[in-house]
Amino acid sequence: MDIVQSNKSFNGNHQVCSHYSESTQCDMTFSVFVPEHKSSEKLKTLVWLSGLTCSEENFRVKSGVQRIASELKMIIVSPDTSPRGEGVPDNENYALGQGAGFYLDATESPWDKHFNMYTYITKDLIETMGNNFPIDRGKTGIFGHSMGGHGALTIAIKNPELFKSVSAFAPICSPTKVGWGENAFAIYLGDQQLKWLEYDATELILNRGWYSDILIDQGLDDEYLEQYLKPGLLQEACKQKNVPIQLRQHEGYDHSYFFIASFIEDHLRWHDKRL
Amino acid sequence: MDIVQSNKSFNGNHQVCSHYSESTQCDMTFSVFVPEHKSSEKLKTLVWLSGLTCSEENFRVKSGVQRIASELKMIIVSPDTSPRGEGVPDNENYALGQGAGFYLDATESPWDKHFNMYTYITKDLIETMGNNFPIDRGKTGIFGHSMGGHGALTIAIKNPELFKSVSAFAPICSPTKVGWGENAFAIYLGDQQLKWLEYDATELILNRGWYSDILIDQGLDDEYLEQYLKPGLLQEACKQKNVPIQLRQHEGYDHSYFFIASFIEDHLRWHDKRL
Repeated sequence: MDIVQSNKSFNGNHQVCSHYSESTQCDMTFSVFVPEHKSSEKLKTLVWLSGLTCSEENFRVKSGVQRIASELKMIIVSPDTSPRGEGVPDNENYALGQGAGFYLDATESPWDKHFNMYTYITKDLIETMGNNFPIDRGKTGIFGHSMGGHGALTIAIKNPELFKSVSAFAPICSPTKVGWGENAFAIYLGDQQLKWLEYDATELILNRGWYSDILIDQGLDDEYLEQYLKPGLLQEACKQKNVPIQLRQHEGYDHSYFFIASFIEDHLRWHDKRL
Repeated sequence: MDIVQSNKSFNGNHQVCSHYSESTQCDMTFSVFVPEHKSSEKLKTLVWLSGLTCSEENFRVKSGVQRIASELKMIIVSPDTSPRGEGVPDNENYALGQGAGFYLDATESPWDKHFNMYTYITKDLIETMGNNFPIDRGKTGIFGHSMGGHGALTIAIKNPELFKSVSAFAPICSPTKVGWGENAFAIYLGDQQLKWLEYDATELILNRGWYSDILIDQGLDDEYLEQYLKPGLLQEACKQKNVPIQLRQHEGYDHSYFFIASFIEDHLRWHDKRL
C-alpha cells in the first residue's frame, strides 16, 4: 500500500492510499482519516461508500467529517466507487462503468474481470485497512450516499460479522425496481433476475432481516427521490420484518453534499453509540 | 442579480449569484450563505476572499463554514478571485490573469479594463449585497486565504468604515517583496513601485496602522510559507505600530482547505465577538 497524499486536518491526517486489489485486478484508491491517537489504541472505524460519478475524493473534501471523527476518535475510510484505469471497461452512461461499480460482483463479460466491488469492500479493503491502520475490527460500521447507501445497506445485511452498524443518506433502496439499477444489473449480472435480488436492500431485509436498527436521512427536495430512491419500500420491508428503521425526511434538502454535510455529525454520533 | 444555484445547508441556503459589475465590466459570480433568520433581521456579515486559482466555489464546498455561520447567524459572502469570461485577458501563469486578480485596481493595459477587484469588492459587491440580502453594514468583517488573505488585510486597512474586523489564513503578507506579487504588480500596476505599496499589508500597517486587532493562522508545513507568505514581516510591522496581532502557527498543517476547515470555527467566533 502506498500513501499518495496526506493532509493534516483537525489534529489527525486525511490520507489518500493506493493498493493492488486481487478482486478488481487493478490498483485501487481509497482515502482514510486517522484521528490523533495513542500508538497502542485500536479505533472505531466507519466505511463510507460514495455515490455515482464520485471517487474517493468527494467525501474527503466536501463532507466535513473530520471534525467529528476527530472528536469521537473514529477512523473513516472512503474507497473509490469502481475500478479505474487503462484496460478497465467504461461506458458513456454516468450510471455504468467507471464511477458506477454498484458494490456488486459482476458476472457478465467484459465487466466480470474488474467490477467486483462487493468482494473488494468486504475482503481486500478491510484486510488492507487491518494491516495498515489501527482499526478495531469488532467496532466497524458502514454508511454511504445514494448508490453508496445501497452499497452500505446490502453489504451490512449480508455481512453482520464485519459491520455492526449501518446508516445511509438518500440510498437507492430497491435498485431492482428503478432505472439506474435495472440498467446496471442487467449489464453487470445478466438477465437472471434472481441474482439481482442479492444486491437489493429491500429484498435482503425481507429475506434476511437485520439484527440492529437502521438510520436513513432523506432530503425532500432531492431530485432523484421519486424516480430512483424509494425509501418507502425499504421502510415497509423493515416494518414487515420488525427491523427498527428511522427514516428522517428533511424539507428543502437536495441530493448534494450540502445535505450530507448538514447531517454527517448525527450519523457519526449514531454509529459511535452502537459500536 | 440572478441566483444561479441554491442548496439548503444547515437550515440556511448557500446560493451562487451572478451580477454585472461596472468596475470589472463583466458579469461577476459570488456565493452567499444566508442562515435561517427572521424577515426583519439584519445579520452580521463576513466577506471571504479566496486564493490563487480559486473561484467562488472552493470556499463554499470545502471550508465547512455553514455549520458555524448557521449557529452564529452570520451571512458569508465569497466572491470570485477575478473577472472572467470571453474578452477578459488571461495568462498561462496561474498567478496572473483569471483566478489571480490580487484584489487591486490595474492601471496597465490590457488589464485595466476588467481587473479592478479592489473597487469591485469595496463598492459593487458590498452594494449588491446590501440591495439583495439582510446584511448589517455596520457589522461586516473580512477574511481570506493566501492571495485572499492579502486582499482581506489590505482592503480592511484602507476601509475601516466598511470592515470592522479582519483575519486571515496563510496570507501573502508583503506581496511587493515576493515573487507572486512582484510579477503580478509589475504587470497590473507598471513599474512605479510606489503604487505597489498601496497593496501591501505590511507597508499599509507601517503607514496607516489598524484600529483593532488581527488574527492570522499559519500552517508550519505550508509549502509556500518561506518563499511567498512572510508572516514575520507583518508581525514586525504590527509590533512597531502597536497593532495587536495574534499569529498562530500550527505544526503539520499545509496550505490546503484541510487547514482552513480545521480552524474556520475559531475565525467565525473571533469575528462574531468583534462585530
